[in-house]
Amino acid sequence: MSHPTAAVIAVGNELLNGSIADTNTAEIARALQEVGIELLFSMAVRDEKSEIVNAVNLAIERASLTVVCGGIGPTKDDLTREAVAEALGVPLEFRPEAWEAIKARLKTRGVAEREDHKKQAMIPKGATPLKNPVGSALGAMVKKDDRILVMLPGVPKELKAMLGEVVATLPEEWKNPPKSVIRLRSFGLPESEIDRLLESLWNNPHLSLGLRVLSPRHTEIRIAGDSHATFQAKETASRLMGDHLYSTNGEELEEVLGRLLRQQGKSIATAESCTGGMISHTITNVPGSSDYMLEALVTYSNEAKEQLLGVSHKTLLDHGAVSRETAEERVKGLRRVSGADCCAAVTGIAGPGGGTPQKPVGLVFAGFYVDNKCWVREYRFSGSRLEIKQLTTMSVLNEIRLKLEKNP
Amino acid sequence: MSHPTAAVIAVGNELLNGSIADTNTAEIARALQEVGIELLFSMAVRDEKSEIVNAVNLAIERASLTVVCGGIGPTKDDLTREAVAEALGVPLEFRPEAWEAIKARLKTRGVAEREDHKKQAMIPKGATPLKNPVGSALGAMVKKDDRILVMLPGVPKELKAMLGEVVATLPEEWKNPPKSVIRLRSFGLPESEIDRLLESLWNNPHLSLGLRVLSPRHTEIRIAGDSHATFQAKETASRLMGDHLYSTNGEELEEVLGRLLRQQGKSIATAESCTGGMISHTITNVPGSSDYMLEALVTYSNEAKEQLLGVSHKTLLDHGAVSRETAEERVKGLRRVSGADCCAAVTGIAGPGGGTPQKPVGLVFAGFYVDNKCWVREYRFSGSRLEIKQLTTMSVLNEIRLKLEKNP
Repeated sequence: MSHPTAAVIAVGNELLNGSIADTNTAEIARALQEVGIELLFSMAVRDEKSEIVNAVNLAIERASLTVVCGGIGPTKDDLTREAVAEALGVPLEFRPEAWEAIKARLKTRGVAEREDHKKQAMIPKGATPLKNPVGSALGAMVKKDDRILVMLPGVPKELKAMLGEVVATLPEEWKNPPKSVIRLRSFGLPESEIDRLLESLWNNPHLSLGLRVLSPRHTEIRIAGDSHATFQAKETASRLMGDHLYSTNGEELEEVLGRLLRQQGKSIATAESCTGGMISHTITNVPGSSDYMLEALVTYSNEAKEQLLGVSHKTLLDHGAVSRETAEERVKGLRRVSGADCCAAVTGIAGPGGGTPQKPVGLVFAGFYVDNKCWVREYRFSGSRLEIKQLTTMSVLNEIRLKLEKNP
Repeated sequence: MSHPTAAVIAVGNELLNGSIADTNTAEIARALQEVGIELLFSMAVRDEKSEIVNAVNLAIERASLTVVCGGIGPTKDDLTREAVAEALGVPLEFRPEAWEAIKARLKTRGVAEREDHKKQAMIPKGATPLKNPVGSALGAMVKKDDRILVMLPGVPKELKAMLGEVVATLPEEWKNPPKSVIRLRSFGLPESEIDRLLESLWNNPHLSLGLRVLSPRHTEIRIAGDSHATFQAKETASRLMGDHLYSTNGEELEEVLGRLLRQQGKSIATAESCTGGMISHTITNVPGSSDYMLEALVTYSNEAKEQLLGVSHKTLLDHGAVSRETAEERVKGLRRVSGADCCAAVTGIAGPGGGTPQKPVGLVFAGFYVDNKCWVREYRFSGSRLEIKQLTTMSVLNEIRLKLEKNP
């Protein structure tokens, strides 16, 4: 078999009644791509035995590997085991060693064992049980002729914890891992513009590209291929995307910024209004950020703005809270009270209310103070309240990143 | 046809290479459920004509309504139109009125019209074009015998904007909307515990339930049925889930809290350390929150903690920054500097580093000041850094919500 392929069957009514979106398929696809196995199709089916049997038949007919996730819990709605056994034409059998593992797991969680838990130790004859390090539902792997079928739990955390073992257990001759995978991250460009800029890479038969939008104007570009081709792709993308490319190794913007602050021995502080604390929340998502993050002052009322940062009453009266002048006074005030090496102070209108023709929703001023230099940027964003908060947060982090990267 | 069913086919390599998770299926499922049409299955297939044709054949054989999303853009990878026409056995035809709509849309976006855009005006013979209010790709609806097939764009924002028209256009005799749908929201209980508590509702044949986990211990429960049964379900759930149930109309916790603050004419302020601004960020996600949110002080370094909130050097030395005593001094300091009616001050260890046997990762103290009463809560959370931040944020908002709800 020169190009083994895979199919995913996600089982559960919750995937078909709008309760949740299926994230397991993408997780499985990423794990399989690491070893060069591509997904041919995926399906979501209801908790009904005949539906699962039909889907399994369709999948094993076409794909070398079928991954069925969900429906292996202890309740009567969990029918994946029965359906897989029926589709493969083998009986279910009780496996004492699986039952011991399930009992041990229940004990550590302080859950009393019940008769229905025993059901989880029934797996198709000839199958190998797969350990679940974070839950009680065991997985299983069955071979039939040159095909392999794997059953995994539907709980994303449990599935994720088991994928490594599944991939390791697959026949070595199926695997053809890409020589090199790089992850570029970009902020500031719309998806269509990235598409256009990277046209030559899309058309390169030696590369496989994937775009993932993380938040507005914030994108991850995954490039797989041999090491020479991906190295060239990285150079090309860096040249074409310039300052918009903030990392070439999958690092988050707040991680890049944290690394720069740490390398240069600098501290940071923020003063926020329209972002409501989101900039500080993002900076502090990085473990160890207390080494450089000093403080954030979220001043929502005008009174708090004046008191904490010493913005003059006259500036607020003459120019308003959302103005270039207020942003500048705020960042200077922040520098004074925090003593941080890098300071950013924002003021803006996140909407949906509060806009005027002169100062529309999405207008944001950000004052910066880095290395004894002070400057103000004006942004005009559009989108929902949360999108304007996200755009402001990313723009502020990116501005400081660029300034620090240009340091000798 | 007494019970019309539907199937979704999502087209696009990006859904099968791990780039993105498919959120369109859940969106379509929710829209169809509003009129009582249930999804039988969904599929994701690659941008290959034969794959789309096979999937469409499978779907129209089994489902009354087939929704194909994705693959209707202008590029050569967009093959849904051709595949649908082939599966239905009808030719594609150029529709001048569709072309006019596409040109008008391109013009408003300032995009020059290209020959390949014309492709988007080719739809299967006999189909009705569906307007796209937020993009250039038009949809289409085709009838074949007693079956209906709909083509929609794969961009979630565009698909969402078009679903209302699609549902309105479906035959009235297919529709059997549930008399009543309620959305309960709960914080503090694990999913398995909610499952167990609501067992009688799951077993009630007059109700249809769906659980959606929003973040750790934070869950939405959707209950559909006739108005009597859902009213009773709401009463039952309220009784069984008690204080864990924070809304019965789909309101977010920060919206409930904002409504209570507004009704009681109260203001709020936070002092944060381990949450890094996330509590304030969450409070200010609500439009108009500047009416009650005064300020947040995110004090990450010990120095900042002492300065801004007047925590005594002795308390920090004797008990440490993460302690009941520091939490209490911080909330009293916050009350002093902010004058807010409701104050919350947290201090804790979000991890993954920084834990000790005495003060492990996940230990959080929160001091509260509401209506001239001051108290401290101790939490012991587990999970990733972000999960501990989320659990702390929700716990703090919920504590103040409960206090305000108990006011006369």
